[in-house]
Amino acid sequence: MEIPLKASLLKMNAPIVDLVKKIKKLGKEDPRRIMHSFKVALAITLVSMVYYLRPLYKGMGEAGIWAILTVVVVFEYTAGATLCKGMNRGLATLLAGALGLGAEYFARIFGPKAESIVLGCLVFLLVAAATFSRFIPHIKKRYDYGVLIFILTFSLVAVSGYRVENIMELAHQRLSTIILGGATCIIISICVCPVWAGEDLHVLIVSNMEKLASFLEGFGGEIFQLPLEVESADGSNEPDKSFLGAYKSVLNSKAMEESLANFAWWEPGHGKFRFSHPWKQYLKIGALMRQCAYHFESLNGYLDARFQTSSEFRKRVQGPCTTMSSEAGKALKELALSIKAFSYPSNSAMNIQICKKAVDEVNSTLQASMVGECDILEIIPIITVISILNDIVKCVETIFEAIEELSE
Amino acid sequence: MEIPLKASLLKMNAPIVDLVKKIKKLGKEDPRRIMHSFKVALAITLVSMVYYLRPLYKGMGEAGIWAILTVVVVFEYTAGATLCKGMNRGLATLLAGALGLGAEYFARIFGPKAESIVLGCLVFLLVAAATFSRFIPHIKKRYDYGVLIFILTFSLVAVSGYRVENIMELAHQRLSTIILGGATCIIISICVCPVWAGEDLHVLIVSNMEKLASFLEGFGGEIFQLPLEVESADGSNEPDKSFLGAYKSVLNSKAMEESLANFAWWEPGHGKFRFSHPWKQYLKIGALMRQCAYHFESLNGYLDARFQTSSEFRKRVQGPCTTMSSEAGKALKELALSIKAFSYPSNSAMNIQICKKAVDEVNSTLQASMVGECDILEIIPIITVISILNDIVKCVETIFEAIEELSE
Repeated sequence: MEIPLKASLLKMNAPIVDLVKKIKKLGKEDPRRIMHSFKVALAITLVSMVYYLRPLYKGMGEAGIWAILTVVVVFEYTAGATLCKGMNRGLATLLAGALGLGAEYFARIFGPKAESIVLGCLVFLLVAAATFSRFIPHIKKRYDYGVLIFILTFSLVAVSGYRVENIMELAHQRLSTIILGGATCIIISICVCPVWAGEDLHVLIVSNMEKLASFLEGFGGEIFQLPLEVESADGSNEPDKSFLGAYKSVLNSKAMEESLANFAWWEPGHGKFRFSHPWKQYLKIGALMRQCAYHFESLNGYLDARFQTSSEFRKRVQGPCTTMSSEAGKALKELALSIKAFSYPSNSAMNIQICKKAVDEVNSTLQASMVGECDILEIIPIITVISILNDIVKCVETIFEAIEELSE
Repeated sequence: MEIPLKASLLKMNAPIVDLVKKIKKLGKEDPRRIMHSFKVALAITLVSMVYYLRPLYKGMGEAGIWAILTVVVVFEYTAGATLCKGMNRGLATLLAGALGLGAEYFARIFGPKAESIVLGCLVFLLVAAATFSRFIPHIKKRYDYGVLIFILTFSLVAVSGYRVENIMELAHQRLSTIILGGATCIIISICVCPVWAGEDLHVLIVSNMEKLASFLEGFGGEIFQLPLEVESADGSNEPDKSFLGAYKSVLNSKAMEESLANFAWWEPGHGKFRFSHPWKQYLKIGALMRQCAYHFESLNGYLDARFQTSSEFRKRVQGPCTTMSSEAGKALKELALSIKAFSYPSNSAMNIQICKKAVDEVNSTLQASMVGECDILEIIPIITVISILNDIVKCVETIFEAIEELSE
């Protein structure tokens, strides 16, 4: 009976072991995640000291919970996001607090009976207006959280004022605890192993460009490989073809890039990045890279089929075609290096020149060839691939220009 | 002096007028936005009644602020998102509250001196673990907000218990106010002019498909228009070409579709949608449509250049090519209609058949034509466009299959 019990225990353990493996993988992929978890825990523990230490508790009292609340909602993964939320929260609390007090005094004019009705109407109107403002794209992009906090604080102050006697003291206590919580978050997220959104954006753009580059470098060799060669290669030891699919993550990187650029805007200067680093140019480069990746999607369909023929025509264009693709890939790799090193992309200009030469060569080969020699249906895929590669070379040129602009 | 003053006043007014126009446009685009603003205002005003009405205030007291806080952060635009946040908040509060009380009693064992240290350690460890769990993709997707609230509530309860005498009463009060706030949100968002995430996803998929369809329907006519015709057409009254660019929004719709599908998962059955409507199938259709749109991007480059020749070859392929493109467009339009009507896409099967016939026709035209007749460089763009159209027809077929599956 021991073995089945052991087996069933093992079976029960399987999902747990699975989970542990997943968690280990998450931590290994980006060890900053573990650091972030400890940073949040540290911030919350520090802020809750207010409760444990009697002298502090006397000063803050119940309002101390606002410090914990602030830390929990403000502390984000990147320093930029934390700054964005912290500043939004602080400013919105100040503004809404002042307005709330104003509303309170205004409502008192109408006498004790009408006061609650006037206050209710004011809250209704202001909350409706503020909620609607969250649909305005510019506000949604940068101040969404601030408006939320504005609504919260205004309602709370307007409503608390009705019951609490010493409203000014309450407001003072709450504001100071929120500032305490916000400042703790911002200081810890900037000073302890900071995760900069700007740096992440920089790294993301570089790695996406490298993915595009390795696709192009490998593509020429892949597509002109005869079916027979493929089979024999598969037989012995399968080579790593992951570089052909890696570019797919570039297709959907827009949301990520935009949120990182948005948070990077809030960050102070760090390392090689100044305060007003041209993050918008990164977004432009990202958009151009996606354009390039869309063409890859069209090319990718031809990889599955491969060119089944070994006609004269194919042999003639193979050389310049492979050069086009691999030189465009090298140009992108050089561009990625130059972004990484914050330098002028001088090497890739040469690669683009070689590319253009190959384009001319392909064109003259095409012009010289008598298409009557072989079946036109067979050469159609080759011609299509050449056209798309041509478009890709143009894309690489515009990327080059955008990076030239950035390096200035 | 009056006129300059008026002029400068007008100048000052300009940005305000601009803003008002923008706001009007936002409201007109989607009047549900205005309704949503009033719904949020109504929910907050209702919940703050707790303060204004003496009998209610006696029962809830200070804890009433938690009801307002809950409404502000839980009330989202769609019913699904509100349900998701409300359920997450409720469950996380319950779980964290119970764990927090447990931690409190556990820490008391160690005597009054060590209590705060033990509590601090517990908070630190649990917060770090919970924060890390937010990086696990499955949790991030569905329970991110719940984990946030778990951290908040656990820290608050663990910490409050240290000072507050009657912790059970506090917990009871807070939980009941949170349930009051959450229930108010959920009831108002479901009963008053509900905005269903599922319906929005349905409408988004249909409208994206229509955008793809109008591009294809118009493309054939556009690309085979001679430069001369274009000029004369531009001269008199410029026709609306917006259908050629509308598909671009499909390229970046992934994030939107995923978040809507995620919220739709929480929604109860409504209208023609059951509780377990196959939202995943919508995501699959969305992905296939994006695939199609990537090919459009490759095609779009050829629209700017247009075919400059009026060769024999061009004339011969023009007919079947235009048929291919417009029939694929019609098929997509029929598919959009069938999704809209929740019916089997029977009409589009016919369109796809016509498409395929046109593909065969183009291929036989190509095979029959002596390319020697004209410059090969001139026919390359035509051949490329034909190949890409071919790929698009294949895409439309897979979309058809996916919708067939959905209709079952």
